[in-house]
Amino acid sequence: MDAPLTDPLLRGPFTRVLIELRWGDMDAYGHVNNVTQFRILEEARVRAFGSPTAARDAASTPGEHGAAEVILGPGFPPVFGRASVDTDILVFSHRIEYRTPIPYRTGPIAVDTVISAVGPATVDVGYVIAEPDGSRAYTVAESVIAMVDSATGRARRLTESETAALTAVVGDRVPLRRRG
Amino acid sequence: MDAPLTDPLLRGPFTRVLIELRWGDMDAYGHVNNVTQFRILEEARVRAFGSPTAARDAASTPGEHGAAEVILGPGFPPVFGRASVDTDILVFSHRIEYRTPIPYRTGPIAVDTVISAVGPATVDVGYVIAEPDGSRAYTVAESVIAMVDSATGRARRLTESETAALTAVVGDRVPLRRRG
Amino acid sequence: MDAPLTDPLLRGPFTRVLIELRWGDMDAYGHVNNVTQFRILEEARVRAFGSPTAARDAASTPGEHGAAEVILGPGFPPVFGRASVDTDILVFSHRIEYRTPIPYRTGPIAVDTVISAVGPATVDVGYVIAEPDGSRAYTVAESVIAMVDSATGRARRLTESETAALTAVVGDRVPLRRRG
Amino acid sequence: MDAPLTDPLLRGPFTRVLIELRWGDMDAYGHVNNVTQFRILEEARVRAFGSPTAARDAASTPGEHGAAEVILGPGFPPVFGRASVDTDILVFSHRIEYRTPIPYRTGPIAVDTVISAVGPATVDVGYVIAEPDGSRAYTVAESVIAMVDSATGRARRLTESETAALTAVVGDRVPLRRRG
Repeated sequence: MDAPLTDPLLRGPFTRVLIELRWGDMDAYGHVNNVTQFRILEEARVRAFGSPTAARDAASTPGEHGAAEVILGPGFPPVFGRASVDTDILVFSHRIEYRTPIPYRTGPIAVDTVISAVGPATVDVGYVIAEPDGSRAYTVAESVIAMVDSATGRARRLTESETAALTAVVGDRVPLRRRG
Repeated sequence: MDAPLTDPLLRGPFTRVLIELRWGDMDAYGHVNNVTQFRILEEARVRAFGSPTAARDAASTPGEHGAAEVILGPGFPPVFGRASVDTDILVFSHRIEYRTPIPYRTGPIAVDTVISAVGPATVDVGYVIAEPDGSRAYTVAESVIAMVDSATGRARRLTESETAALTAVVGDRVPLRRRG
Repeated sequence: MDAPLTDPLLRGPFTRVLIELRWGDMDAYGHVNNVTQFRILEEARVRAFGSPTAARDAASTPGEHGAAEVILGPGFPPVFGRASVDTDILVFSHRIEYRTPIPYRTGPIAVDTVISAVGPATVDVGYVIAEPDGSRAYTVAESVIAMVDSATGRARRLTESETAALTAVVGDRVPLRRRG
Repeated sequence: MDAPLTDPLLRGPFTRVLIELRWGDMDAYGHVNNVTQFRILEEARVRAFGSPTAARDAASTPGEHGAAEVILGPGFPPVFGRASVDTDILVFSHRIEYRTPIPYRTGPIAVDTVISAVGPATVDVGYVIAEPDGSRAYTVAESVIAMVDSATGRARRLTESETAALTAVVGDRVPLRRRG
């Protein structure tokens, strides 16, 4: 893995999360189902930023059993995992464009991920689902993530340290075609 | 069901598809998972416009076994079901905004559905996921659906009769907050 | 629905739960996936015996919006729903045999359900997935359900009233071929 | 990974398939859902024996991008993948016992897999879902897999070479408690 990471659509820095497809991700058309691609994006967020239930998850063993290799590139601060003690990490919105169907294969797909904006109470996350060898982009998407106080159920503002950590790694927006 | 259908967000005509939730639709937060909501929207499309694999599906028995009651309101022409003989019905894009979490309950949720635009080769479908009694809107979404020639894998234009049938039932766009 | 319920494999009394299939239940073979059939059985249990999270689910409205029609036949006591205040309803084991693939159709499939044994701390539930018109049986399955104290995480015995309510409706075992 | 593989329940040889959990595998109880565990077993079969749609899957790149590390131990002949040209690989039956709930963690879970019988037209596959460090067994399961002629839809006998390849790696049955 010494070759530089390249994504067909992203020019600036990004972090790659490798996600293993499952045969069951295919639908009756024999492609990775469009709904299931959100499951793959969800998993990329979880691995890049920490689990939204990190406070009660089992211990993981980075560096063993293949767990460490799934993040390539600079990585992100595990803001969501740390916040999970008292904060629910909820999706406020998604946008997604499917450029070409994803065929199933054993082995991983690349989810090239960027933080594209940090607001008072939200974080914008962009993604390109691509071949790991950089040859093809399948899907472009963007999610707005909101942090919600677990006790009250209300949106909360990011703390200063969360904002600083995320702002330090902000990158370009992903190229959605109908950004309006 | 003699009371008029009302949706908290839609003023113009819409068609309601009732979708039974499944307990397994919940995630570890105890809400209907944001990804799973796309599965619910997919199912609403299938029931409203016909199955994308209608040409090889089993026969259904509308009017028996509860199958008929799930569509309320004017309904739509089954354009996608009819086209499925030689056409793949693919999603080009989705936009979704989650206003409040959906709690699980036995019994159905309402997906209030509109066709909001008919293009040369695409159909825009809007949805509001709401309480069946009209008391609350949970989620607002819009999908652009493309018709793809099954043999060549290329997008195809809608036929004149498809365009006419769909244009006749075009309604208002759903109120996404960040419509750009 | 005045005709008597008939199941191709069951001679004794059973309760029918009608479950709407989803297009997304199909896999790349174009059939209802074997894994997804467990989701359908799970949902049949939830509707027949009550939700394992009933204590925090939203209110449902039996008799409106199509919710009431999904249970046909004598029905079961909602033991699991009532117990959910302080008890987790966990699966101890499943056995399943797939006799023929289930094709997708809009409209429901029948899950004909029996309680086939009540133990000190477990309940055996049998199922036949069948055409609603009684013409064909697709799948035969049996689950052993255990009740676990939510506070301690340990199995607990059924109460006298739970045992009495469930024993009153015990029926025949489903005809698994390799019952050993 | 030089330490010998150990499974809490298996004494004889087995092959380990490492499967990455997904956050979305959890249900409202906050554990890996019992239904979803069959998805994990399905994926272990696909990786161990080849994809049932191998003839039309995309190319994978073993040895790159982390794809190679997921199989530990002796491995199996890719009989199902090779057969997929003209054969559907269908599940005839499953048995499963859940010993203790699986908590979510980032990073993989171990599916320790054995072929426990080879019949004229079926293959028995046993599995233990365990911690990768060998400290705990969660679930024990066994599937009977049947090979079905894609053209006729009828079960077919294993070929001599398939039987020979699979018989050469037959191991012990997994310790289901109620084997009857």
